[in-house]
Amino acid sequence: MKRAEKQPHDSARFDLPPDEVRRIGYLAADAIASHRESLTSRPVFGKVGTAAGLFSGPAPEEGVPFEETLAFVREHILPFPMGNSHPRFYGFINATADPVGVAADGLAAAMNPNCWGGDHAAVHVEKQVIGWLASAVGFPLEAEGILVSGGSMANFTALAAARRAQTPGNVREDGLGGPDRPRLTVYASDQVHACVDKAVDLLGIGTAQLRKLPADEKFRIRLEDLESVVARDRAAGFTPAIVIGNAGTVNTGAVDPLDALADFCARERLWFHVDGAYGAMAVLSPRLAPLFSGMARADSIAADPHKWLYVPYEAGATLVREPGRLGNTFRRFPEYLASDAESPFPGPAWFAERGVELSRGFKALKVWMGWKTHGRRGYAASIENDVRLARFLSDAVDGRPEFERLADTVLSIVNFRYRPAGRSLPDADLDAVNRRIVNRLVGDGSFFLAPTVLKGRTALRVCIVNFRTREKDLLALLDEAARIGEEISSASAG
Amino acid sequence: MKRAEKQPHDSARFDLPPDEVRRIGYLAADAIASHRESLTSRPVFGKVGTAAGLFSGPAPEEGVPFEETLAFVREHILPFPMGNSHPRFYGFINATADPVGVAADGLAAAMNPNCWGGDHAAVHVEKQVIGWLASAVGFPLEAEGILVSGGSMANFTALAAARRAQTPGNVREDGLGGPDRPRLTVYASDQVHACVDKAVDLLGIGTAQLRKLPADEKFRIRLEDLESVVARDRAAGFTPAIVIGNAGTVNTGAVDPLDALADFCARERLWFHVDGAYGAMAVLSPRLAPLFSGMARADSIAADPHKWLYVPYEAGATLVREPGRLGNTFRRFPEYLASDAESPFPGPAWFAERGVELSRGFKALKVWMGWKTHGRRGYAASIENDVRLARFLSDAVDGRPEFERLADTVLSIVNFRYRPAGRSLPDADLDAVNRRIVNRLVGDGSFFLAPTVLKGRTALRVCIVNFRTREKDLLALLDEAARIGEEISSASAG
Repeated sequence: MKRAEKQPHDSARFDLPPDEVRRIGYLAADAIASHRESLTSRPVFGKVGTAAGLFSGPAPEEGVPFEETLAFVREHILPFPMGNSHPRFYGFINATADPVGVAADGLAAAMNPNCWGGDHAAVHVEKQVIGWLASAVGFPLEAEGILVSGGSMANFTALAAARRAQTPGNVREDGLGGPDRPRLTVYASDQVHACVDKAVDLLGIGTAQLRKLPADEKFRIRLEDLESVVARDRAAGFTPAIVIGNAGTVNTGAVDPLDALADFCARERLWFHVDGAYGAMAVLSPRLAPLFSGMARADSIAADPHKWLYVPYEAGATLVREPGRLGNTFRRFPEYLASDAESPFPGPAWFAERGVELSRGFKALKVWMGWKTHGRRGYAASIENDVRLARFLSDAVDGRPEFERLADTVLSIVNFRYRPAGRSLPDADLDAVNRRIVNRLVGDGSFFLAPTVLKGRTALRVCIVNFRTREKDLLALLDEAARIGEEISSASAG
Repeated sequence: MKRAEKQPHDSARFDLPPDEVRRIGYLAADAIASHRESLTSRPVFGKVGTAAGLFSGPAPEEGVPFEETLAFVREHILPFPMGNSHPRFYGFINATADPVGVAADGLAAAMNPNCWGGDHAAVHVEKQVIGWLASAVGFPLEAEGILVSGGSMANFTALAAARRAQTPGNVREDGLGGPDRPRLTVYASDQVHACVDKAVDLLGIGTAQLRKLPADEKFRIRLEDLESVVARDRAAGFTPAIVIGNAGTVNTGAVDPLDALADFCARERLWFHVDGAYGAMAVLSPRLAPLFSGMARADSIAADPHKWLYVPYEAGATLVREPGRLGNTFRRFPEYLASDAESPFPGPAWFAERGVELSRGFKALKVWMGWKTHGRRGYAASIENDVRLARFLSDAVDGRPEFERLADTVLSIVNFRYRPAGRSLPDADLDAVNRRIVNRLVGDGSFFLAPTVLKGRTALRVCIVNFRTREKDLLALLDEAARIGEEISSASAG
C-alpha cells in the first residue's frame, strides 16, 4: 500500500462531481464482481485470525485517496466474509444476497432519503412493498406494516403493538411499574426465537412472564398445554395477553398449528402474533402455502425479506392486521415535524408512527426491485428449490446408516447427527463427536454450519436459503462429515 | 416501458455470473451519477403527488429484465428524492450522503455479512469503528458500543442498559409489572428528542415518569429544577434512575451543561446518558470540542454517523463507558448459536449481546471507509464549515430588520422568523405568516426547511449538515422568505 498523499481538507473532498461519483461506483462494482468470482476458491468462512491487528489502530488523522481505502477493503475485508454467499454455507438462516438487491442498496444509499414520511418516492415504494407483503400473507387490504432491520425488530415492533392493545389503561404513559399495574403473560413453544425473550424483557413484561411450553415431537406447541397454562395464569391473577405462533422455527423449521392457535386466541381474546421471520415468505409458493394455514388470521406477523426474498441485510417486516394499531403504539410528533392543513408535504404513510425509528433508510428499494425483477414466480421457484434441496439432503441422510435424522424436514432445514455404524454410544458421546465434526468442517473452511440442540441432543443443522447450493454440495457435506466422524470415533475407540 | 419478456424462473435468475454482477453494478453507478448530476435542476423536495398511482399496483407475478426495473427507478423514483442531497435542503437533521459511503454501502451489501459476531472481517471493522467513536467522545479504551439504525435506536439501546443497571433485582426476568416493582423516573429538558419518549414508553417505564423540565432561555436544562424534582420524586416513593443531557438539541442545537449534570448524577447515583445523535461528532473539531465538556463523563452516549459523518442512512451508535453493561442488558444465546471451547469461530466482539438485533448488516463499512478516506481532519473541516455557514446565516438574519432570530446559534441550526418591518403583529399572526412562508418555499420546490416551535413561537429552522450548501444558497433563502413574507403580510394587511 502506498503512503498517504496530502489531501485538501475541504468540502470538495465530500462534494464530488458526477464523473467522480461514477468512477467510484465503477471501482466498487469491479470489487464486487471480483469478490463474487473468487468466493468459491477461498474458505467458506473468512477467519481474520492473526490478522486482527490490521483492525486495531486508532482513528486516522489524515485521509487517503479513495483508491487506497478501497485497496485495503479488497485485500483485507472482502476476502474474509461471513460466508453466506458461498454454495457450501448452511449456517443459521443467513441468505445469499441477490445481486439485484446489492445494486438496489447502492441506489438507495445514493438517494439517501429518510423514510419517516412525506411524499417523496421512497415512502410510496415502502407503502407498496408493505402492501405486497401483507397481501402475500393473506392480510386484508387495509393492513399496515413497516420495514425494520430484521426478525428481532419485526417481532419487537409487533409485540409492542400487542402490549399496547392488551394492557388496561394507557401503557405508553402509565408504564408497567407500580402497585396497580397488570402482570402480562406471553405464550409460545420452547422453540420460539430468542428475540422474543429480548422483546418481552425490553417491553418491561419480564421473561419470567414468558411461558415457554415444551414442544411436541414435531417441535410444535401443544394446544392442550397452552390452554391449561393460560387458565392457570388467569386464576393466579396474571393478565394473559399474547400468544406467539411459529411459522418456521429457527431450529427445525417447524410450523405451529396456526389455525388452532387463531381459534384459541379469538376465544380467549389474546393477541395472536406469528413469527414468520424465516418461513412466512414461503407462502409465495402455492405448493408450500398450505403449511401456513391460519397465519392470515394473526393479529400481527413478522416476516424477513432478508431471508427468503434474498435481499441483502437489513430488511425485516412487521405486518399488522388492524390499521391504527401501530399508530396507537408509536405515534408521537415532535415539534419540528409539526405540520398543518396547508402543508405541501403530506404523504401516503407516516412510517415514523409505525415503529421505533424516526430516521429510516430506504430498505424498501431492494425488496421492490427484487420483486419487480423476479416476480412472485421467481421467488416461488427459488424458495421451492431450497426446500427441494433440503428434502434431497434429508433423503440422503435417511439412506446412510452412519447418520440419524433428528427432526422432520418441513421447510429448508435438515437436522441430523453422525452415529458410528455398528456401535451404540450414549447421547453425551454423540454430542461431543458431532460438535467436533462441526468444528472440523468449519475450521478447515470447507463448509459452514452451526450445531443446534434438539431435545437435548446435538444436531448437525443445515439450513438452505441459498440459490447457489447444488445437490453435489450437500452430498459432499455428508461424505466429509462421515469421514471426519469415522476418524474421530475410531481414534476415541482406539 | 417495453413489455415484460418471458424469463426462466430458476435459480439462474439469482445466481448471476461475475460479469453480469459487474454489468449491473455499472448500470447502477451510471444511474447514481446521473442522479447526482440532475439534482440541482429539479425541485429540492421530490413530490410524487398525482403520480402516486404508479406505486399502487399489486405485486408482480412475472419478473422483468433488470434493465426494465432500473428504467422505472431512473424515471419515477430517483427524480423524487427526500431532497437532502440538494444544496438548498435545510430540513430536520438529514445529512447529505458522502459518495464514499454510498460506494461502501454497495460493497457491504455485496459482502452481506451478518454482524452478530464471529471472526469475519466485518466484525473486526465494526469493533474498530466503535473504538474510534468511543475515543473521539473521550471514553476510556475499554468502553463498548454498537452501531444501530440511528438516534432512536441509539438512545433506546442506551436507556435499556440504564434501566437494567438502575432497577433493583433483575428487570430482564422480573419486568416492571406487579405490586412490588419500582416506579423509575427519567429526567431531561423539554427539548429532549421525542425518541426518548418512545424509549421510556417501550421500556415499560411510561412517559408519565419522564420529567421534562422547561428549558432556560438558551434551551438548556436548569440544574436547580432538576435537583428539586429529583428530591420531590424520591420523597414521593419514585426511583429516580436516569438523566438525559442533550449534546445538540434537535430544535436549536443547544448543549446542556454536561459537566454539571455529570456532577449531579455522580452525587445522586443516577445514570447519565447524553443524547449526542446530532452534536456529539462535532468533538472531532478541536474548535467545537469545548462545547461538549462533561460529555466524556457520561455513562452512555448516543451519536449518529449518519448525521455529521455524512454516511448514508442508516448508522447510529450507542457507546457505553463501562464494559459489560450492554452484555448484562442484551446477552441471550439461542441454542443454535451454542458454541464450545474448541469452536473455530470465536471473534473480537459479540454484537448480538450488545443490542436488540441478532441479524445485523455491515453498517460499519461506510463509517470505516469514510474515516479512512477523509481522516479526522476532513470531518472536522466539513463540520466546521457547516457551523461557519450557520453563523453566516445567523449574522445575515441579525442584519436584516425583517427577520428576528429566535435562538442562539450554537452548532449548525439557525432559528428565526419573518416579522414585517414597521408593523407589530401578535405572535399568533406571526406564526401563521411564517408557516405560510415555509409552505410556499417548500411547495414551489426552491428550498426545503421545516418549521419548529420555540417557547410557543413558530420558527423558520435551518439546519446545515450539508457539504453542498454555499453562502449564496443561504442568502437566497432570506431573499425569498422576505419576498414571500412581504407578499403575505401585504395581502392580509390590505
